[in-house]
Amino acid sequence: MLTAKDVEQAYERIHSYVHRTPLLTSRTLNEISNFQVFMKAENFQKSGSFKIRGAMNFLLSMDRQSRDRGVVTGSSGNHGQALALAGKMLGIDVKVVVPQDASPAKVIAIQGYGAKLERFGTSSTERLRRAQEISEQERRVFVPPFDHYWIMAGQGTVGLEILEQLDEVDAILVPCGGCGLIAGISTYVKERRPSVRIYGVEPEQSNSTYLSFKAGQRVELHNIHTIADGLRTASPGELTFPIVQRYVDDILLVSEKEIAQAVVFLLERCKVLVEPSGAVTVAAAMFRKLPSGNGKIVAVLSGGNVDRQKLCEIFAMAES
Amino acid sequence: MLTAKDVEQAYERIHSYVHRTPLLTSRTLNEISNFQVFMKAENFQKSGSFKIRGAMNFLLSMDRQSRDRGVVTGSSGNHGQALALAGKMLGIDVKVVVPQDASPAKVIAIQGYGAKLERFGTSSTERLRRAQEISEQERRVFVPPFDHYWIMAGQGTVGLEILEQLDEVDAILVPCGGCGLIAGISTYVKERRPSVRIYGVEPEQSNSTYLSFKAGQRVELHNIHTIADGLRTASPGELTFPIVQRYVDDILLVSEKEIAQAVVFLLERCKVLVEPSGAVTVAAAMFRKLPSGNGKIVAVLSGGNVDRQKLCEIFAMAES
Repeated sequence: MLTAKDVEQAYERIHSYVHRTPLLTSRTLNEISNFQVFMKAENFQKSGSFKIRGAMNFLLSMDRQSRDRGVVTGSSGNHGQALALAGKMLGIDVKVVVPQDASPAKVIAIQGYGAKLERFGTSSTERLRRAQEISEQERRVFVPPFDHYWIMAGQGTVGLEILEQLDEVDAILVPCGGCGLIAGISTYVKERRPSVRIYGVEPEQSNSTYLSFKAGQRVELHNIHTIADGLRTASPGELTFPIVQRYVDDILLVSEKEIAQAVVFLLERCKVLVEPSGAVTVAAAMFRKLPSGNGKIVAVLSGGNVDRQKLCEIFAMAES
Repeated sequence: MLTAKDVEQAYERIHSYVHRTPLLTSRTLNEISNFQVFMKAENFQKSGSFKIRGAMNFLLSMDRQSRDRGVVTGSSGNHGQALALAGKMLGIDVKVVVPQDASPAKVIAIQGYGAKLERFGTSSTERLRRAQEISEQERRVFVPPFDHYWIMAGQGTVGLEILEQLDEVDAILVPCGGCGLIAGISTYVKERRPSVRIYGVEPEQSNSTYLSFKAGQRVELHNIHTIADGLRTASPGELTFPIVQRYVDDILLVSEKEIAQAVVFLLERCKVLVEPSGAVTVAAAMFRKLPSGNGKIVAVLSGGNVDRQKLCEIFAMAES
């Protein structure tokens, strides 16, 4: 079980290692959405996404012996970068299994933080299985990307900061992939301020949480195609999904074009770079996917790791 | 004459209309530059650049009769957008003369703020002359882009905020075009804290301030080609240049590729969008154009108005 207390303890552990990210506002976004919107800027977080919170809490929760053995994970993106940086900050040896076709920018980022790298397969399942193999062979601790209470507790500190930063908040919008972030945030917020509504946001083209939420059981997807690469998860986690069922009010869906237009809006109007996975919440606000009358809402901008090539593709998609 | 007192009075006038922009930091930039760098984020300013400060101070300094007659300026960019927004906020009628080939994004921005628009010529000289003609024909007050004490006093409030935000600062880097911004900042800073060094930064390919500074008199350039479109000024102003001579310690130059790489660095690493003209200061820090030993420096990010097409061109230039 995960509790608000776990999130508070995680915050004690990690707060000196991570940024307390600001809440950004945009008058134009308020007008477009008909809400007063506060954007929690985890794109400014260390490693470029919220993932450092969970990774750091995981490493700091391990005992000394495990830390000495080092850790391993499989990731094509933000979790790998975050674990690499967290390991560097704490002097813990990190290995990351990346896909054969990993983007050079991400490989450079992971290696730049001093982590070891292995290229294997192309799917998420393949590289997580390979990471677990390495875990057994090299006696490294496997760090899962989302489905672990230490990870969720770390991600939940985003919710803790939001409640500290805003006296009043009616609803919080959170991107949904494996649901580690929304599990952490919703547990903290619903236990500490139950009146706040929590909405997950997912791409229409990668809607496993939506389908699972409606079906009342975990649904698995295959052949997922979305520009929101951080949300290409086959299904919500075994541990995260029951929390979503318990605490999340609804799951909202956004189209690929809406996501691209939100990235462009954030860039051109707000002057901030947010990756597609992090912009789904703003897309939901811009294109009025919320039930009306929520007043003050928070849109979590979960990360900002996009490279140049991808950005130019997003521009084309926004205009299509 | 411009004095620190004028800047303080401008601040009193404008501070409730403009944002107090934050100072951003980047550990990576500190490592690359060998300084502790604070970036004054005027790209987050209303209208997308510092220009709103001068425009607002100008409009608020006008008498009632002049305000009723309305104002006019010639601008292809940030000054026009800023004046249009300032006019909207104060209920003053604004007309902006833009070049025939003005980018659709800028035209939409100016019209979006409710200003009247006239297309005329292609050069800065042509449209400023046309704006002065309109000023006489329609009895509108002409608002110059930089060469006026009200404008300079408004821009100088950037320096006032920097000294309030930082207890210690060794040097401030300021982009130079017509020199309204650096004239305002240097007057305030050198009168109030004379130990702070002030450096102007200019593109190598649009170096009229550098040449003028070295020659001891205003030098005029023709056929300027730089991606830093806000700094394509033929020469520093009649009123701004004597202030540059008096207060500025030196002018630093950066290449086109260095500017493009600074834009990319700010975007990919810091997750903020800064236009080329605003990124010259970070380019100067990244590529170590400063004399060593300055400790804490401030790089003014003067604006963030870049459209998508331009951004993709900058990416190509950064890799060339």
